[in-house]
Order: sequence, then structure tokens, then C-alpha cells
Amino acid sequence: MATVTANMSMSLDGFVSHPTDGVATLFGWYSRGEVPVETVEDRVELKTSAEEAAALEDAKTSLGVIVYGRRTFDDADGWNGTHPLGVPVVVLTHSIPEGWPREGSSVHFVTEGGIEGALAEARELAGDKTIAVGSADLTQQALNAGLLDELTVDLVAAMLGEGIRFFDHLKGTPYELRQTWVRPGNGVVHLGYQVVKP
Amino acid sequence: MATVTANMSMSLDGFVSHPTDGVATLFGWYSRGEVPVETVEDRVELKTSAEEAAALEDAKTSLGVIVYGRRTFDDADGWNGTHPLGVPVVVLTHSIPEGWPREGSSVHFVTEGGIEGALAEARELAGDKTIAVGSADLTQQALNAGLLDELTVDLVAAMLGEGIRFFDHLKGTPYELRQTWVRPGNGVVHLGYQVVKP
Repeated sequence: MATVTANMSMSLDGFVSHPTDGVATLFGWYSRGEVPVETVEDRVELKTSAEEAAALEDAKTSLGVIVYGRRTFDDADGWNGTHPLGVPVVVLTHSIPEGWPREGSSVHFVTEGGIEGALAEARELAGDKTIAVGSADLTQQALNAGLLDELTVDLVAAMLGEGIRFFDHLKGTPYELRQTWVRPGNGVVHLGYQVVKP
Repeated sequence: MATVTANMSMSLDGFVSHPTDGVATLFGWYSRGEVPVETVEDRVELKTSAEEAAALEDAKTSLGVIVYGRRTFDDADGWNGTHPLGVPVVVLTHSIPEGWPREGSSVHFVTEGGIEGALAEARELAGDKTIAVGSADLTQQALNAGLLDELTVDLVAAMLGEGIRFFDHLKGTPYELRQTWVRPGNGVVHLGYQVVKP
């Protein structure tokens, strides 16, 4: 069965976005290496360490489906119908946006059943590949529903002080995770966890 | 000049204490190794990895003074006048507790000047040894005053969901830290940071 995973770059004080410091602090590690990383947007040039580049390539290769919320869909203008990574996308939304779904599009909509419904649809599309949950809010919902299998955090050596927390509104706490790997980077530590199901 | 440092065991979601889960989750790593660690309390038996034990011994050897808030002093009943680690203690408090200071005691009180005042007193006592700031609240005050030099976090593979956050109410954010070392442990990752002064 497809593995459900979530990944974010998070500051040491727990934030994955900041009201004004959009990317410089959190995503600086994506450009502090020597090895070019192929990106979906030509205008962005990324260079990481060889180890980081290999891990990013692995994640891309195993990726089957991404689950997003409505805000990300709106912000991305629906990726023009095809996500730049070339994988199907499931959008969890209260109502299907006007003009959607579009013919030939790989963007799917789920309006019922919350995160469970979205992940059920994602499993149909993912086969044995990975399902990535694409926001902090959805990650929290998946954790709270007992549906998240893995969690990877790029822990950035910085304090953001405010913004959106990766881990908030968690239920069933306290609980332990299984640390699966640790990869020190440049101004960042990459951390892998398995979520231990009760 | 004495280095000012702070260390805490922190859950992945940022908490250093929990209303009911006092110690099991956060401090489990102190007893998951093979090497006995000498403690100040006979009833507690700690075993860590050899690397962790060496790091704890180093920290103990270099420790000069600990700065605490009034609540810790009260909870510890003033350590009976002598902190179990054998180092002088500075307590930052609005008023000196009744019956204190005591003769022969190495517990000092600072009632004015806030964290700056407490650290000035600590510097008098520390020589070239390390000053440890002993609570999340004092760590935040020291960070906000630009007086913290180093920060070490034992990042525990667990979610606590609620409690006291290590990093809260920070000022001057966003800002970067300098990652100085990373030591993977058993269900924990030990992280060292230098605070970069503007």
C-alpha cells in the first residue's frame, strides 16, 4: 500500500512559513551546495550537497500523488491542470472550483470525507508509490487521523518567531515517533521519522 | 569571558515540558544507552551512549554557574543552599525569599536588572567557565537581550502537543543561527548552535 508522507522545511522554533520572510531563511539550504538539482521551474536554480541532491531525486522518483488543500490550488492557479512534477494531484476542498475538473487534467477534487476521503482517492491514483501531504494543516489532519506513515523535517538553523507551525492542534499526545535517519546539512539537519501507530 | 549557554530536551513539536507527562517522553534518551552517567541524585540511574556520556561529562566539567528563575528555586526548596552539581546558582527573583541568603550557601539572588542583571552577577562568579541558563523563559529573555552565546537542543522523537515551548515570544525574528554540531542519538538528535550576534 502507498506510504503517506509529509515533508517541510521548519525553523528551530517550529515554523514552516513566515508572514514576510517567505523563502530566504527557510529554503536557503536548497542553494548552499555544489550539486545542481533539477527543478520544475527554470527560473529557480538549486544547488545542494551531493547527499541532499540524491535524497531529493529519490523522493521525486518515488512520488506518486500529492494531496493539497484548496488554498494551495488557488495560489497555484490549479497548476494549469498539470502539476509541474508530473504527478496527479488531489485537492481537498469544500466545493469544486468553477471550470473544474478540466479535460486532460491530472488534478482531482475530493469534497467529502475530509483527509480520509482525500487519502482514499490518492491511494487509487498512487499504486505503490508515495503519497505526499502538501501542507502543515493537512499533515496535522493526517497525523490526527492516524493516516500518516512517515514524516521528514528539514530543520533549519534559524528562528522565525511567527507564522504557521508545522505541528499544531495535535491530538492523542503525548506520543513517540521512531527516528529513522539523521543527515546533517549546511545550516540544516534532515530528519526522518516513522509514525508509530498505536 | 564566560560563555552563556542554554540546553533543553525538546519534543519535535517544540515543547520542553508537558502538564502531565513530566519526564518519561522527554528524558527517555537519558536511559537508553549502555554507559552509566554519574548523577547528582542517587535514586536516578542514567545510561546513555558513550558519546552522550562524554558530552554530558564535558558539560559538567565546564559548567561554572547556573541561572534559574524563582519558580525553579521554589520547586527545589533552594537546593538546601547548595546546588547538587556543586556550582554557584544565581536566582532571578522580584524579592529575596524569606530566610535567604543563607550563610555558607552558594545560592545568590538578583532582584534588579532582569536577565542582564542576573547574567552580570553570574559572570562575577563564573570566571572563564560556562554560564547555563536554566529555563525556557530565561533562555527566551537571554536570546531577546542578545546575551545568549550558544544553544544546545536534545531534539526528542516525540510529539507532546501542549506544555511549555522552548522558543516562544522571540524578538528580532527572523534570524539565523550557526549550526555547530549534530550528534544522532537513540530516539533523540543532539543539536548545537551558536547565536549569531548582529
